[in-house]
Amino acid sequence: MHFSELIRALKERNAGVLSYGLGTDPEIINGASLDQAQDTQIGFLEKGNALTASLSESDVGAIIIPNIEELRLKAEKKSIAWAVASDPRLAFAEILELLNPRPVPQKGVHPSAVIENEVTLGEDISIGANVFIGKKVQIGSKTIIHPGVVIYENVVIGESTEIHANAVIHPNCHLGKQCVINSNAVIGSEGFGFVPTPSGWRKMPQTGKVILESEVEIGSCSTIDRPCVGQTLIGTGTKVDNLVQIGHGVITGKGCAIASQVGIAGGAILGEGVILAGQVGVANRAKIGDRAIASSKSGIHGSIAPGEVVSGYPAIPNRLWLRCSAAFSKLPEITRSLRELKKEGSE
Amino acid sequence: MHFSELIRALKERNAGVLSYGLGTDPEIINGASLDQAQDTQIGFLEKGNALTASLSESDVGAIIIPNIEELRLKAEKKSIAWAVASDPRLAFAEILELLNPRPVPQKGVHPSAVIENEVTLGEDISIGANVFIGKKVQIGSKTIIHPGVVIYENVVIGESTEIHANAVIHPNCHLGKQCVINSNAVIGSEGFGFVPTPSGWRKMPQTGKVILESEVEIGSCSTIDRPCVGQTLIGTGTKVDNLVQIGHGVITGKGCAIASQVGIAGGAILGEGVILAGQVGVANRAKIGDRAIASSKSGIHGSIAPGEVVSGYPAIPNRLWLRCSAAFSKLPEITRSLRELKKEGSE
Amino acid sequence: MHFSELIRALKERNAGVLSYGLGTDPEIINGASLDQAQDTQIGFLEKGNALTASLSESDVGAIIIPNIEELRLKAEKKSIAWAVASDPRLAFAEILELLNPRPVPQKGVHPSAVIENEVTLGEDISIGANVFIGKKVQIGSKTIIHPGVVIYENVVIGESTEIHANAVIHPNCHLGKQCVINSNAVIGSEGFGFVPTPSGWRKMPQTGKVILESEVEIGSCSTIDRPCVGQTLIGTGTKVDNLVQIGHGVITGKGCAIASQVGIAGGAILGEGVILAGQVGVANRAKIGDRAIASSKSGIHGSIAPGEVVSGYPAIPNRLWLRCSAAFSKLPEITRSLRELKKEGSE
Repeated sequence: MHFSELIRALKERNAGVLSYGLGTDPEIINGASLDQAQDTQIGFLEKGNALTASLSESDVGAIIIPNIEELRLKAEKKSIAWAVASDPRLAFAEILELLNPRPVPQKGVHPSAVIENEVTLGEDISIGANVFIGKKVQIGSKTIIHPGVVIYENVVIGESTEIHANAVIHPNCHLGKQCVINSNAVIGSEGFGFVPTPSGWRKMPQTGKVILESEVEIGSCSTIDRPCVGQTLIGTGTKVDNLVQIGHGVITGKGCAIASQVGIAGGAILGEGVILAGQVGVANRAKIGDRAIASSKSGIHGSIAPGEVVSGYPAIPNRLWLRCSAAFSKLPEITRSLRELKKEGSE
Repeated sequence: MHFSELIRALKERNAGVLSYGLGTDPEIINGASLDQAQDTQIGFLEKGNALTASLSESDVGAIIIPNIEELRLKAEKKSIAWAVASDPRLAFAEILELLNPRPVPQKGVHPSAVIENEVTLGEDISIGANVFIGKKVQIGSKTIIHPGVVIYENVVIGESTEIHANAVIHPNCHLGKQCVINSNAVIGSEGFGFVPTPSGWRKMPQTGKVILESEVEIGSCSTIDRPCVGQTLIGTGTKVDNLVQIGHGVITGKGCAIASQVGIAGGAILGEGVILAGQVGVANRAKIGDRAIASSKSGIHGSIAPGEVVSGYPAIPNRLWLRCSAAFSKLPEITRSLRELKKEGSE
Repeated sequence: MHFSELIRALKERNAGVLSYGLGTDPEIINGASLDQAQDTQIGFLEKGNALTASLSESDVGAIIIPNIEELRLKAEKKSIAWAVASDPRLAFAEILELLNPRPVPQKGVHPSAVIENEVTLGEDISIGANVFIGKKVQIGSKTIIHPGVVIYENVVIGESTEIHANAVIHPNCHLGKQCVINSNAVIGSEGFGFVPTPSGWRKMPQTGKVILESEVEIGSCSTIDRPCVGQTLIGTGTKVDNLVQIGHGVITGKGCAIASQVGIAGGAILGEGVILAGQVGVANRAKIGDRAIASSKSGIHGSIAPGEVVSGYPAIPNRLWLRCSAAFSKLPEITRSLRELKKEGSE
């Protein structure tokens, strides 16, 4: 696609293009990071991007930049095609989508798929090889089920949802529209609930279900458990990375972002727009307010106020934690100083 | 099921019902938590349950309560059917099981399953779609294998065990009776054993096997590795949550409970009834005594005495850790105080 | 295999046998650890091995030992067949391989496998039951694909690679030769990249690919994400344990060892021979120098110098961390001492 065509498509999509220079109007094949780009590739820069200085050395064919005169001049000087965008990262997302249209899998049901009785399939669906779909499952139109997926009975799946290979959806779960379930994820397996008895752990039957609202994404090998009673609920637009555990009865608000290897224990409640960084742990029944942020590896008990940024284990305000952590690495000095002071005192 | 029928069934099961009041003998369809319950649902309360106060506001149809006069009177006043149980949680587990009988999958072998030579299948088994069972595998009666499961050669599986979709069992493993393997779990993959050589890591062949005794449950996407020689052994009645790693040669006693995202490194030994909370790490060859408890995110090296409760990394006694953690968040003050004292001292 | 045959085979393989004594030239069936061994089993000892003392009590049939006179004499005294090896662990690895030749799965393509158009298959491959292979995939000779594996379109796989059951390989990935992908691992799923917008998270298309060089091993349920642009690259001979997350655009050098439940965030760069112990976290764009080591549960930001050994979160030099951790558990005392000193000062 020539750069001029790309610009036209971006304008149609209202992607925030403010101005541009076509340079030699190069043919652009795909995207690249600035330090690895070739002349058929397009890159982008944001304010503060570490690669800004390298624009002069890059072989990139075209560049999306923020409204910074200096960057525009650098591009012009090297005859690099450029466009100024109000949000270069967002414009770049649009460009990658234009250059890499999602492969459309074959419509219909692969002959090797096994579909049980009373299943309802919407129009224009695609069901891949060796898929299993249990009784009374309902699947909305345009939904794509990749090979090897197993869907237990009574599951309801909205339209335009995509379920990647070998993922498993357990009975009675509801998946909204435009969700993405990545490979080997497990939705709705039974919560870890056991009652101690003199003869050992007795399973608490997990009779609830998991509800994913619309536009929810679940990463590869992540597990979302169903509860004893009621539901585990993931709010609209919440994105969950790989290898995340979401326990029985957890409720998340809309638009949360949950990074890899986070574990959220049973009954915890997250507000809207909560961000949990990698390997965070959230204890049973903890409450996290809207737009709170937990930095990586922090461990949250009790409740976190809306908008708070926390770190550490147990989690404390991030700024305090930074100072405490710095002091932690000086504990040997602190101990020594204290010993000396005591010695002086006793002399 | 009417509440009176439920009571009768609970008594037949010796579920510890001490007294009851039928109220309007409501039809009960399923369980619910007190704050979300409707009049066809049953809930339960325990001593200290945060929802106790809300009984007066609940729309619940019936309630299992501990032997507390005040709760009984509240229920009576609202004409809520009630039963006092010696262990309300345990009685509730029985009730959920009565109200939600496990779906019985179709008996027999699905035509799409691939069964290799010399496989022995017990009576009344159920083998789902697209299952693969390798040579010389033996499967006990009443065992259920859900779609997409892969069982390598020479595996032995006891009776009444259930293996969920897309789980994988590697060669030579032994699974006892009444085990549950959840979706996408991997039992018996090779341990992470490599010998450093001048030309790189050389694999140590992992020729051992994994043994799960009876009533063991393994969570979704959990991995239990086989060792170089000998076995990895999970004791009877041990319950393992999702995304747990159990390394090569680990031995656990009976009745342990291992929460999500715990990692147990090679050769570690757990006694009976050990409880590891979420994201705990146990180092190579660590030893954990009977009924010891590690709180979430703790990291265990060396050995932990029976009955001890530990926290932190490296793990120390929980009570000490609580005090140390509280002091940690005061490190900036401690540092400042110390600086002032030194200044005073040098004046 | 008689011990004498084993010795002959080890010599052919240049396994570092320095001397030996045949004893009764026992028939050896497999390997065992010294404390569990029977007379048809072989064990090994290294310098400092905790089991050294137990050689006199062991029922082992043969033993590989380091060049320590005392051990040789103990073995002779008990008529245990013995061999001194320059690296007993390495010799033991050779022995286990000799005693346990890898099962050779049936050559060819199982009739239940689904192979799309334009797929290129090398000679002597083995493709198991219910495998799915997408369009234009190329697979090298002698490669083994176990049942249930799903390979998306345009993947290239080298020769003598083994992919275990139910693993998933996403579009455009390149796997080198002699790689091992363990069960339920996911290679090349989309990176966790979203752009915040007023209407929620907007997906950044992940158009890059994952490249595994040769002799790379990926553990069960581990996930290696593809990036927005460019590639995620795992260097030759790098070994990755179970449940590991490797984010979009990560680059590792040759011969790294990455233990279970490690998470490496997007854009991090590891040098050669880096060792990350269990549950380590590496932040976005962190840089870890050649042969650096991070002990379990440490959290790495910024950069780590080559050869450094770090611990803790945030990671600091291991020796410092050990002292700081020891001091941490004395924080209550430190606080008390300080209070007393202040009191004295103010008197």
